[in-house]
Amino acid sequence: MLIIGEKINSTRKKIKEAIAQKDESYLIDLAVKQARAGADYLDLNTGAFPAREIELMKWLVGVVQQAVELPLAIDSANPDVLQAGLELNKNGTPFINSITLEQPKFDTLVPLIKKYDANILALSIGPDGIAKTTDGRFDHAKQLIEALCRQGISSEKIYLDPLIQPVSVQNDFGLIALEVIQKVNSQFPDVNTICGLSNVSFGLPGRKHLNKCFLAMAMAAGLNSAILDPLDNELMEVITAAQALLGRDRFCKKYIKKFRSNS
Amino acid sequence: MLIIGEKINSTRKKIKEAIAQKDESYLIDLAVKQARAGADYLDLNTGAFPAREIELMKWLVGVVQQAVELPLAIDSANPDVLQAGLELNKNGTPFINSITLEQPKFDTLVPLIKKYDANILALSIGPDGIAKTTDGRFDHAKQLIEALCRQGISSEKIYLDPLIQPVSVQNDFGLIALEVIQKVNSQFPDVNTICGLSNVSFGLPGRKHLNKCFLAMAMAAGLNSAILDPLDNELMEVITAAQALLGRDRFCKKYIKKFRSNS
Repeated sequence: MLIIGEKINSTRKKIKEAIAQKDESYLIDLAVKQARAGADYLDLNTGAFPAREIELMKWLVGVVQQAVELPLAIDSANPDVLQAGLELNKNGTPFINSITLEQPKFDTLVPLIKKYDANILALSIGPDGIAKTTDGRFDHAKQLIEALCRQGISSEKIYLDPLIQPVSVQNDFGLIALEVIQKVNSQFPDVNTICGLSNVSFGLPGRKHLNKCFLAMAMAAGLNSAILDPLDNELMEVITAAQALLGRDRFCKKYIKKFRSNS
Repeated sequence: MLIIGEKINSTRKKIKEAIAQKDESYLIDLAVKQARAGADYLDLNTGAFPAREIELMKWLVGVVQQAVELPLAIDSANPDVLQAGLELNKNGTPFINSITLEQPKFDTLVPLIKKYDANILALSIGPDGIAKTTDGRFDHAKQLIEALCRQGISSEKIYLDPLIQPVSVQNDFGLIALEVIQKVNSQFPDVNTICGLSNVSFGLPGRKHLNKCFLAMAMAAGLNSAILDPLDNELMEVITAAQALLGRDRFCKKYIKKFRSNS
């Protein structure tokens, strides 16, 4: 299970403040803690500062790379910010967060993906937004995967996000995401699937409980990557347990180790 | 989600003692508590007393039916015990726990299933025991389902148990059960799937944690029934959450109600 630590995102108020104040120690602490908790990548986002997004991304990449040796997921709607972050990433294959079928951005991002041999987080959105049925959502996923492959990007680099919407808004939004994950796995076995979880429980009480339950279900459907808070130990326990239950943890060694370190 | 309350089973030491002492109030209490906690059926088993199994089953059915109006799952390896229990069941369609392809028992049980219009818990075991691969396990499931259907038993009455074995024994035992559930759902959409959960975590620490996680995953794979302890509130919370996340709880009403009553 590949885990992208989501915490260093300027849309969160505390992170925005820390970046505004160039509070290196706060950000380094978050980077180190996420790495220790099991993150494989750290997501970095400076989008809350549109006028200084490039400059701050460069600064943030530098700060984080002082402290941890993880590769980075450069998270921006602006291709120039992505380019700036990717250029400085020095610890292995980076992630680009994210791409859709939208033009002309698609054509701008493809050369970046190739230049940096990056993994690409691909969102299943169509020209009219997010489809409200499994078939529609999968159709967008399929189009995007095929468009990326036509550009010579290999399936293993693609991390398809089915886009999870709240079950409080439409009863089958959870099911749609699970079914898209299954269909991508069965029709594009080399393409990875990834998601952020917490949106599924929006508007409902006991959100952590729902998020944990949904993570287990998504992993059973084939999810092999997630963007989440690795400092949420209950969520990380679900991952460890699910890996053991799905036969992805030889002799359940990691599960037993994690359980012992938590007891 | 159909829930069979598993607690009144004489293989458990306290239940064996309560039955031996004809402790009606203890057994009635367990029956009432399971019903209140959301059980749709109560499993009754007197197998720990082979010489008196029929007599004690009759007595137990009478005791339980004094107190609750749930239909019963008559649980025995002995067809005469099943017959005795079924004859006394008075609150709706009973369950027979269980049948396999094994002869001559298969031929003895079919008339009982028909006579009492019973639901039948069907175990995917073959002549050489429990298969160690998904294909083998599913093949046994398929043979048993088809054999029951050939006898005129309708698919809706069949509850196929994929038989969950410990992941500590063989790494993919969890996965095999999940895959069999999926295959039964896709190839026999009217057949139900059921299981007992706790075996999956045998031999590992943190068993409750694994059982909860596996329940969510099995429900995502299509499980629509389970034999479990309805007094385990954490397990029941997983069911309520998973139903909401799978779009089986309109407007998430039951989830919200359960969450409020727990807070």
